[in-house]
Amino acid sequence: MPSAVGITLKQAQAAVAAAIEKSQAIGTLMDIAVVDAGGNLTAFAREDGAWQGSIDISQIKARTARYFDMPTGAIGQLSQPGGPLFGIEHSNGGLITFPGGLPIKNAAGEVIGAIGVSGSSVENDHTVAEAGAAAVK
Amino acid sequence: MPSAVGITLKQAQAAVAAAIEKSQAIGTLMDIAVVDAGGNLTAFAREDGAWQGSIDISQIKARTARYFDMPTGAIGQLSQPGGPLFGIEHSNGGLITFPGGLPIKNAAGEVIGAIGVSGSSVENDHTVAEAGAAAVK
Amino acid sequence: MPSAVGITLKQAQAAVAAAIEKSQAIGTLMDIAVVDAGGNLTAFAREDGAWQGSIDISQIKARTARYFDMPTGAIGQLSQPGGPLFGIEHSNGGLITFPGGLPIKNAAGEVIGAIGVSGSSVENDHTVAEAGAAAVK
Amino acid sequence: MPSAVGITLKQAQAAVAAAIEKSQAIGTLMDIAVVDAGGNLTAFAREDGAWQGSIDISQIKARTARYFDMPTGAIGQLSQPGGPLFGIEHSNGGLITFPGGLPIKNAAGEVIGAIGVSGSSVENDHTVAEAGAAAVK
Repeated sequence: MPSAVGITLKQAQAAVAAAIEKSQAIGTLMDIAVVDAGGNLTAFAREDGAWQGSIDISQIKARTARYFDMPTGAIGQLSQPGGPLFGIEHSNGGLITFPGGLPIKNAAGEVIGAIGVSGSSVENDHTVAEAGAAAVK
Repeated sequence: MPSAVGITLKQAQAAVAAAIEKSQAIGTLMDIAVVDAGGNLTAFAREDGAWQGSIDISQIKARTARYFDMPTGAIGQLSQPGGPLFGIEHSNGGLITFPGGLPIKNAAGEVIGAIGVSGSSVENDHTVAEAGAAAVK
Repeated sequence: MPSAVGITLKQAQAAVAAAIEKSQAIGTLMDIAVVDAGGNLTAFAREDGAWQGSIDISQIKARTARYFDMPTGAIGQLSQPGGPLFGIEHSNGGLITFPGGLPIKNAAGEVIGAIGVSGSSVENDHTVAEAGAAAVK
Repeated sequence: MPSAVGITLKQAQAAVAAAIEKSQAIGTLMDIAVVDAGGNLTAFAREDGAWQGSIDISQIKARTARYFDMPTGAIGQLSQPGGPLFGIEHSNGGLITFPGGLPIKNAAGEVIGAIGVSGSSVENDHTVAEAGAAAVK
């Protein structure tokens, strides 16, 4: 029996469903990606008409959040010109360091995956990502 | 006004759900990707413990099926050494030409997207892809 | 039955012809690319002596405009250091976020493709892209 | 005044137009690319509904034909398993070595560019490429 790595598909799909629900509640069209603890894609959904460019960005946000176990926006504050992580976006095949990516934790506080949301303002992206991450217990 | 391109998220999720159901019925663990008529990812799911390497292969299969509007295995029969399409895998950033990718058509027979399945034998991959594609009316 | 995605070749060629006409009127040499609603190349022309480096840039501009359904320059205003989309150029295999890319809409206001122009100042690139997009009804 | 390299846009567009005419005459849907003497894209057109995967293949065929100044199919005969050029497709970022790419020569017999056609059988691709190349004097 092969081993899963952290988040299950059932949990990932619950996160996607909660994110879609929040996206519709605030009137946006989002691309939503969930990666497991290994940083590998587990579930993805693009709302009808959501930006095509956000297919990639949502996945990068999710990976970036797991790569460093912090919100993507927190990394972006450190990667500005003059900041300590300036240019980190060039690593790992390309990172996205503005808000919309969040680690997903289990009840014990362990990081079991991450969610990335893209398709609107970064504030809305972050709000929808929070709703998705909160759906995983 | 944003425009969707072919298959809807609802249809794509129905295809993924039907593919998962078939995968479980035959005792496999699959990665399943659905692209729209533009070849862009619309829905994705990886069953718990399914091969990590199939995350990429399932997506390439789906794109390959849409790129040429035929089953991926049909292309593979033409791309063998000595065949008319030998080496076609070098195009489009890498193609997969063994079975598991199928166009998805609407009731009028138009191609509105494609599904790619990877995680088991190519026969099983094809069987699961068929179940997914058949779920879209 | 193959399906087209948005803009037709006839419309795309009309956009290219109008862009070339404008380019000649203002004394520039341009590369001009048109993508369909799926972000895939539909028509392309390079005026004699236009920059070789703009072959790629014009295509990326067209895709970028369709990826986010807005002018490329509007994205560039958001992606400056300190801006909300700082670093977005690292996604989607590389974006171009200065002016010269525009969505192409049909009479109903739906985005059916995009045009990207490169070869002169970004102001001229934008002017020529506008002429191209306006030629599609 | 910047220099053009071989084929002019006017000649390249004539080649594309002749190729489209032939494609329609034989009932196919083609992607057609023309590169200049430097191997750089000069003109491109995709007939409505033509394979998306052929956007890339037509361009690679045109480049491959210019890279070696011979029909792509001639290279393919040398690159089969056991042949002297086995594996050449791995070079130059990926080559296509089945028919459909042809050098374009001027009246003096000099190679001034190349055409690549993809979208049907390799025999049809070659036929349409020949019609395109013949339109350039």
